[in-house]
Parts: sequence; C-alpha cells; structure tokens
Amino acid sequence: MSIAISEIFGPTIQGEGRLIGMPTVFVRTGGCDFRCSWCDTLYAVEPRFKADWRPMDAGGVLAEVNRLSGGEPILVTLSGGNPALQPLTELLRLGHGQGHAFAMETQGSKAQAWFGMLDHLTLSPKPPSSGMAFNRERFEACLAAAGADTQVSLKLVIADEADYRWARALAADYPQLPLVLQPCNPTPATPEQPELTTDPERLNARLRWLVEKVTADRWYRARVLPQLHVLIWNNERGV
Amino acid sequence: MSIAISEIFGPTIQGEGRLIGMPTVFVRTGGCDFRCSWCDTLYAVEPRFKADWRPMDAGGVLAEVNRLSGGEPILVTLSGGNPALQPLTELLRLGHGQGHAFAMETQGSKAQAWFGMLDHLTLSPKPPSSGMAFNRERFEACLAAAGADTQVSLKLVIADEADYRWARALAADYPQLPLVLQPCNPTPATPEQPELTTDPERLNARLRWLVEKVTADRWYRARVLPQLHVLIWNNERGV
Repeated sequence: MSIAISEIFGPTIQGEGRLIGMPTVFVRTGGCDFRCSWCDTLYAVEPRFKADWRPMDAGGVLAEVNRLSGGEPILVTLSGGNPALQPLTELLRLGHGQGHAFAMETQGSKAQAWFGMLDHLTLSPKPPSSGMAFNRERFEACLAAAGADTQVSLKLVIADEADYRWARALAADYPQLPLVLQPCNPTPATPEQPELTTDPERLNARLRWLVEKVTADRWYRARVLPQLHVLIWNNERGV
Repeated sequence: MSIAISEIFGPTIQGEGRLIGMPTVFVRTGGCDFRCSWCDTLYAVEPRFKADWRPMDAGGVLAEVNRLSGGEPILVTLSGGNPALQPLTELLRLGHGQGHAFAMETQGSKAQAWFGMLDHLTLSPKPPSSGMAFNRERFEACLAAAGADTQVSLKLVIADEADYRWARALAADYPQLPLVLQPCNPTPATPEQPELTTDPERLNARLRWLVEKVTADRWYRARVLPQLHVLIWNNERGV
C-alpha cells in the first residue's frame, strides 16, 4: 500500500489554522479530487506533476520524518493535494507508536475509516470562489469517521463577499466545530511562478476586511487567521 | 471597589498568544508593578498617565463591553498594565452571568483568588531583556490560584539569545503548560511616538530567527507566534 508523496519538509511552524505556530514536519501527498481556482500547491494536485510524486511506504515516510525531526516526536501535518485519497492507516499506527502526533487537512470530499486515528482533523470545504461544489453528505461522512477522539475544526477560505455569506451559512450548521476563517491569498505561487512575490499590504488589507466583516456581524465564534508562512516567507516552498 | 480603566475597545481580534485570531473586546486596566524596557503600553503603566485612567465599577465596565459587542456574549480580554492588581471578582461574576468569557494576561507577579474564575489565564513572566526579575514563588502562587478549571498557558517574549536561554530553562520547569514564544517587537509604539512605523521586514526577520532557533533545538513544544496586530495594524491603538 504505497503513499504518493509530493514532498516531506520541515521542521517549520504550521502557518495556518487552529495549530498555527506549532512546530511540525509536513508530509504532502500528491493527487487531488479537486482543482480549486486559487490552489497554491498545484505541484501536488495536477496530474502533469505525477512523475514528481514518489510512492513511499509508511516506514519510508517515517524514516524521513525522523531524519528531519532528529528522531524526536513531533507534530506531523498531512497535507496535499488531498491526503484523504491515500492509504494512511499504517503511517498513523507506526507513527503514533514512535510518539508522533498527526494533524491532517482535507476538503472533506472523501471519508476514510482512519480519520479516527488522527489527533487533529481540519476540514476545509471549498467556497464558491474555488469553482468547486460542496457535498454535504460527504462532509458529514468525514465528521462521522473522525468520531469523538479526534479534534475536528472547520477552516474556511474567504476570497470575497459570496464566500463570506456561504461560510456564515455553512458554519451555522456545525456550531460544535471550532471555526477559523482565512483570507484567500490573492496571488498564490504557481508552478510557473514559484517565486511570485506576494504583496504584504494586499494580504493585510484582506485580513483587515475579514476582521471588520466578522466584528460588524457580531460573528464572535469565527477566529480570523492569516497564512503566516505567506506573510513571513512569501510563498516560498519548503518552509 | 473600583477598577482603574485605561481603555476599553473592540471588538477586534486577539493578536497574540494561544487565542490568536479570536474576536474579543479588550479591557485594559491602568497601573503596573513592572516597568519593562520594551513596554508597548506605557500609557497604561506609568503613573504620569494616571489622570487618564477612569475608576469604573464592574457594572460600568460591562455596560461598555455590551455596547461594543452589541449585547452579544464575547471573549473579554483583560490586559494592562497588570490587571492582577485590580479587584475583578465582581466583573467576572457579573460578566459570566451575561454569557461572556474572560481571558487575562499578567506577568505572574501577583496572585488573586479570582484567577480561578477566569476562562483563560496567560502567564507571561518577563525575560532578562525587560530589566525585570522573575519571582518563582509568586509565579507559582498564580498557577495555584488559577486551579484546574482555568486554562493556563505560558507566553514568553524573546528579544535576544539570553532571553531564549532563559525561556528554555523556565519552560522546562512547567511541562504541563502550553507554551507560546513571541518575538519582541524591536520598535514598540510609545506615548511620545504612538504612530511609530514598525518595519515588517524586521519583525519577520525576528520571527524567522525564532523559528530557526526552536527547530534547530528540536524544541517542538514551543509554539512560535507573532503579534498579529503589529503586523497588520502597525502599532496603532484601539484595534
């Protein structure tokens, strides 16, 4: 059962979501069932990059995690692409045995029984601006698969007013989930322009806009967080 | 029992620490037993600003919080100065009755029985660069006062290598506390220069330095977070 690996890097800090600031090693899988308009990791999504993805088994992935972490237990962040497409049971079982913790981020389009083995699961259904459709049944299957022992949170990317309205309605249906809103990076890096410079003023303006929306609407449950790695490392890969 | 109030403002987001990104109203008390070299809120610390601090009772503070929050329950962040110098029992009792949650930040130099009524307590003992001394006995009295029902975290500001070494040693003595490291703002606003412009490149360089230290030392428990409000609002007051 091999896992398609796009990249393994770190340790660095988690730049977004509920675990923002936590030291972590990222394991990015290759392959995705979505193709979001503003995707910032197309090199882990588009089939034309498939040749760059290495098939690795759980032991091989953990050997690399341990090499990077210096053999110390660390938070491993599973990202993609959509890591929910991969067979990760063995990675979670072996990794927990070595003391690692596991957080995963997925759009919630595919549930796996092993979600319940994760320490943290960030469900990040994609808003209208992505061009993708929300499938409630599949999303709820992900919630059910995570069960009570996995800390689940909802992270919604907001590019515009329509996304914001969508997020308000969606979040209201899941009051039990901690909620993070994240302004969409208006200038994501692409395989063609990996060094594209992000304008920090523009990112900050998007963040201020979102804070103003949330406070004006008295939506005090909604935590607003930027992508810290974009602010501090400017879209660079591998950090 | 009146509370010395420097300012009440919001709602905005919490810019730092474990609750980073949470919508909140800030209640800043006036008066402090410390005088840190890099203090960014001298207007709530130095006795020469005492005439600006209003004595308010708990009902008056809550009336202002409710006006700002539109009457909705919200996270109230008690900051200073050192809010631990104030009589806050009644504020916490009445505020909880209205559905508000309370987070407080203090250096841990003075314990109060009402710490156990807080929802979140951030203890932020000051590092050597502040010019202040750490008093372990008082710090542990704060921990004891908080008890088991208050979520306590440790937030340590790091200006230089000496601060970093101090933080490593201190945090090791309290492995049970969630830990946040925060790079010191090298150019805090002052009453004389409230509009002082912070150089985002310099702030980012301090953050990158701290991430590199933590990961090189495999200190994976240490969450590294910036002061988001400084990055996005540039030291401005009242946001």
